[in-house]
Amino acid sequence: MDLWITETHEDFYRLGLKIESILYRERSQYQEILLVQTKEFGTVMLLDGIFQTTEKDEFFYHEMIVHPSLCAHPSPKRVLIIGGGDGGCVREALKHHNLDQIVHVEIDEKVIEASLKYLPLHNPDPKNEKVETRIEDGIAFVKNTKNKFDVVIIDSTDPIGPAVGLFQYDFYKSVYEVLNDDGIIVAQSESPLFNKKIIKSIHESLNKIFPIVKIYISPMPTYPSGLWSYTIASKNADPIYPVRTVEEPTKYYSSDIHKSSFILPNFVKEIFS
Amino acid sequence: MDLWITETHEDFYRLGLKIESILYRERSQYQEILLVQTKEFGTVMLLDGIFQTTEKDEFFYHEMIVHPSLCAHPSPKRVLIIGGGDGGCVREALKHHNLDQIVHVEIDEKVIEASLKYLPLHNPDPKNEKVETRIEDGIAFVKNTKNKFDVVIIDSTDPIGPAVGLFQYDFYKSVYEVLNDDGIIVAQSESPLFNKKIIKSIHESLNKIFPIVKIYISPMPTYPSGLWSYTIASKNADPIYPVRTVEEPTKYYSSDIHKSSFILPNFVKEIFS
Repeated sequence: MDLWITETHEDFYRLGLKIESILYRERSQYQEILLVQTKEFGTVMLLDGIFQTTEKDEFFYHEMIVHPSLCAHPSPKRVLIIGGGDGGCVREALKHHNLDQIVHVEIDEKVIEASLKYLPLHNPDPKNEKVETRIEDGIAFVKNTKNKFDVVIIDSTDPIGPAVGLFQYDFYKSVYEVLNDDGIIVAQSESPLFNKKIIKSIHESLNKIFPIVKIYISPMPTYPSGLWSYTIASKNADPIYPVRTVEEPTKYYSSDIHKSSFILPNFVKEIFS
Repeated sequence: MDLWITETHEDFYRLGLKIESILYRERSQYQEILLVQTKEFGTVMLLDGIFQTTEKDEFFYHEMIVHPSLCAHPSPKRVLIIGGGDGGCVREALKHHNLDQIVHVEIDEKVIEASLKYLPLHNPDPKNEKVETRIEDGIAFVKNTKNKFDVVIIDSTDPIGPAVGLFQYDFYKSVYEVLNDDGIIVAQSESPLFNKKIIKSIHESLNKIFPIVKIYISPMPTYPSGLWSYTIASKNADPIYPVRTVEEPTKYYSSDIHKSSFILPNFVKEIFS
């Protein structure tokens, strides 16, 4: 059998993985959800034809979107995760044992349902009492909540369709308002090779709101170009310095990797010059 | 027109680039050589269906295979480059103005001819007097030469077909013999996500010969997994410390990137445990 699932990125780049079976396929209110069993990458989820997460390489992304903010914050207690319905960010956040609460806001209930069923690696502890899952628009949640958070993690899809608002100034301004004094926001910010304009735009928006804005990068094999960026903004502490460690094993993240991920190659520095 | 060139890696992973035209196609004595014009990656060369170099992302690989060894060596004068018929390694080595000679040994004359014609970005200075190009088997050259070198760079294809011997103990032993007292060897050593056995094998072979063996990593978007490793062995200086800088602009390499590329994620450290 020679079945492949292929993502085409902007009509010039394609990534394909060999699959063994289709596990789940449904069109939700927001997007087409597809879960496949692959030959080498384990279970893989695509949304609207775009690779979101694979069991083989998800650790790069989930560890790197979660741990730098939590390790740079002096004492994080309450975390807000927006998006990330696959569960990987919640799993990584739970490796910080001192957290009191993780509020997880995902717009698409079907993504959470499918992930709980087909991605157990991403959801090892689905009934943890520290986690409050809300099926809700993240933009509306942040605008309306009366709660405050220490860290906000934006694990969004690409800035097309339902996620567009998660890349905009007004949303970041609302996030600033719900962050405590030492608050930190981090957002996935696409490929530094393919999406320089988006990275620059996110950076400029956050720069109008937060005193400290930085970008860091990590490998991410199944995302376009294999290299990914994360933009992080802070009210107080410089996020390049880890002041805490993760209390459970990690495959990619470490305190040394934390620091080195902020060391930017010249072609990335040039995005901001 | 919807023409794509696609590499299939070990029957589970595929990378495709949209192409505009075929520039050159020939079967040499050693391999099938294909050069295509792509939509986004510029001119691209494949050997036996495997992406070797693209104008868009070659800088990651060529800068990272060349500069760490040359910047860690206290005073490199004579460099040997084996493979790398596209010319990218020679171009990067020429950014070190204090070199006296670069001996470039490539087995396949057709690769050099096609690269000189279709990859001018890789060959900005093809008549530089410091460069001696030899069409010759690298293994035989190293075994027979009476010359000595400060740095040897192994820019080989994958360890299948003509390049197999370039990944083996006997070859590394010969390289040791042609290196001066402060000599350093560096070799591309495949993907740390997909090729752990090869990496371990290279490391073990070099460890029997050289007192210091290290691995470092960099992104490489069009190589399988988008993440690449380089194994470096030294007779004296620890290669993780740059003691010199590159005298011309670079897009990826810098002294800080040099040091950070040796900071290994846990999943890479585990290859050697």
